[in-house]
Amino acid sequence: MNIGILGAGQLGQMLALAGYPLGNRFTFLDTTGKPSADIGEVVIDPDNQHLAAFLDKVDVVTYEFEHLPVALVREIEQHKPVYPSSRAIEVCQNRVEEKTLFDRLGIPTPAYRVVASAAELEAAAGELGCPVVAKSVTEGYDGKGQAVLRKPSEAASAWATIGHSQLIVEAFVDFVREVSIIAVRGRDGSVKCYPMAENQHLDGILRYSAAPLPDLDVGVQQTADRYIQALLDELDYVGVLALELFQSREGTLLANEMAPRVHNSGHWTMDGAITSQFENHLRAIQGLPLGETRALAPTCMVNVIGREPSSVEVLKLPNAHLHRYGKGERAGRKLGHINLLAGSHAELMAKTRDCAKLLPDAPAPHMTFDT
Amino acid sequence: MNIGILGAGQLGQMLALAGYPLGNRFTFLDTTGKPSADIGEVVIDPDNQHLAAFLDKVDVVTYEFEHLPVALVREIEQHKPVYPSSRAIEVCQNRVEEKTLFDRLGIPTPAYRVVASAAELEAAAGELGCPVVAKSVTEGYDGKGQAVLRKPSEAASAWATIGHSQLIVEAFVDFVREVSIIAVRGRDGSVKCYPMAENQHLDGILRYSAAPLPDLDVGVQQTADRYIQALLDELDYVGVLALELFQSREGTLLANEMAPRVHNSGHWTMDGAITSQFENHLRAIQGLPLGETRALAPTCMVNVIGREPSSVEVLKLPNAHLHRYGKGERAGRKLGHINLLAGSHAELMAKTRDCAKLLPDAPAPHMTFDT
Repeated sequence: MNIGILGAGQLGQMLALAGYPLGNRFTFLDTTGKPSADIGEVVIDPDNQHLAAFLDKVDVVTYEFEHLPVALVREIEQHKPVYPSSRAIEVCQNRVEEKTLFDRLGIPTPAYRVVASAAELEAAAGELGCPVVAKSVTEGYDGKGQAVLRKPSEAASAWATIGHSQLIVEAFVDFVREVSIIAVRGRDGSVKCYPMAENQHLDGILRYSAAPLPDLDVGVQQTADRYIQALLDELDYVGVLALELFQSREGTLLANEMAPRVHNSGHWTMDGAITSQFENHLRAIQGLPLGETRALAPTCMVNVIGREPSSVEVLKLPNAHLHRYGKGERAGRKLGHINLLAGSHAELMAKTRDCAKLLPDAPAPHMTFDT
Repeated sequence: MNIGILGAGQLGQMLALAGYPLGNRFTFLDTTGKPSADIGEVVIDPDNQHLAAFLDKVDVVTYEFEHLPVALVREIEQHKPVYPSSRAIEVCQNRVEEKTLFDRLGIPTPAYRVVASAAELEAAAGELGCPVVAKSVTEGYDGKGQAVLRKPSEAASAWATIGHSQLIVEAFVDFVREVSIIAVRGRDGSVKCYPMAENQHLDGILRYSAAPLPDLDVGVQQTADRYIQALLDELDYVGVLALELFQSREGTLLANEMAPRVHNSGHWTMDGAITSQFENHLRAIQGLPLGETRALAPTCMVNVIGREPSSVEVLKLPNAHLHRYGKGERAGRKLGHINLLAGSHAELMAKTRDCAKLLPDAPAPHMTFDT
């Protein structure tokens, strides 16, 4: 089966690497003019002139990037199956739709308000209690459009800075850690959930994801499974879905946001689970049975950001798996990741610290289970 | 690093899939006009006109097929590093050189004679005791050039059939099983050996390889490790080497033949070992540290020969990993393989039997450890 991928970055490339052994071949549609995937065929189409040619080559379409014009995806749906559907993209592109869906399905979120003026923003900041974060309802390609308000009187300036007609305002959560759950749903409605991961970010960029979590109550995993299953079923979703959550001191989970695609916090599954998220996404969208999602061992994914480490030094680490994306160095850019596996979580974190020392400018890893 | 591969079949393709995450890109030199690898760049060169262009693109050269003209490999060595070296190819292409090397390193083999006439063949058959197998010293691309003699008087007809000026004559071995060992040697001389596999052939084609072996004496693995290490060191070898052996009822190992490349009996390592033979071959030839070779769980590799099974049915098996090569169906052709992992060897063999039922014309799996 020939699979069409909208986008041609590292997620597409890793999908392709997982799909060759399944007998798949890949065609990428790149609208940026700067594809990084160099496997399969890349149709470079910044002016949207070659869509028909792209669609002629493929049996099914998926994407590595949800900030796509919904109209484009709907048009493609007229010709070829698209998984996940345009409905999933639509919800994930719009913070109000996303929160509304969470609310409707009984998935708790941090307290929030939707505001349509600087005055409403100021009122919301007062009600929720500062600091709050204000975000544009629709996100641009660059992830910009956010501001933190330390007091309600900053509303006018924040409103002007963001410059959107509708914002969502969120209370800060006193969370213990950021976690995520990745799940996959097949065309027949079957669902499999991966063990939850703990995620460590720096400046909004994921740096470390570890799974499975030794200190996670079984009930918390079950709650997350229930939340993501509700989302998958509600959207009649096909493929991999990622849900980012905050976990409070009491163990409560609050949904932050979701991504309708393979996700950086699931890269640990490439070496740490029986079936990777990439293979399971491909199995799902072509109607194959889903693979098992169990973890093989305690695993930590370490992102390579901005500058490359020495491959020699990284590969000296026992049970270290290097995944380079073939991209040039640039500050803040995701260049690759390293999956570390170990016999225990203590050993895992020691190894993660050793690995972090090899990465220019990497923060020290801190996981809540690492005491 | 750009890696040049002589040959463009499934072994080259699996090397490429293992190498993308290491940051490698691949250029294949195909002299058959019928490449099956469709990843990276394939230089189709049946008339040997494009070698310079191929060499310009690559930093280091390896191969997936040892029946290459030694003169060609020597020529390439003048321009770019080739691993394993032409010396390894030379030895592996010539059964007399290979046996002589085994003898010199104290690696036992089945009793054999080298003969240069029908009369010598008849005498050797008498000495060794029929049946014997007579083989041309150098093997053609098609693997032909063998005959079994049930009595010495068949020598004249066998000699005429094979039609070579020098043959090697081997006694039949009363072996319990066929086994193999795969090892890898780095540019710095470091060596790692994989757990031995038991191999089941049908009509000269590998059908099943299982590893690790629950009934293998530690001393036998150590003996095999010693044999292959001696070969690697003697040849100053860089990359993966496979050594096929017979194991007698008493546990003695007799070397059959070796292959200077990644090997079908090592495909189980793709899912069943910490580092696959493909990744370790690539790590070796580019001077990276070798990866661990430990098995993750009892694993059986099932070859897909001639006709494809249903991917849906195969992927319903728990912990089954499908590797399709993207080739058309044809009798006797290797189209793919399936790696099965299980919690115990009993469970593994039950699963292997389930898998075999999905493969048209597959023989029933028989492993000596499966009682």
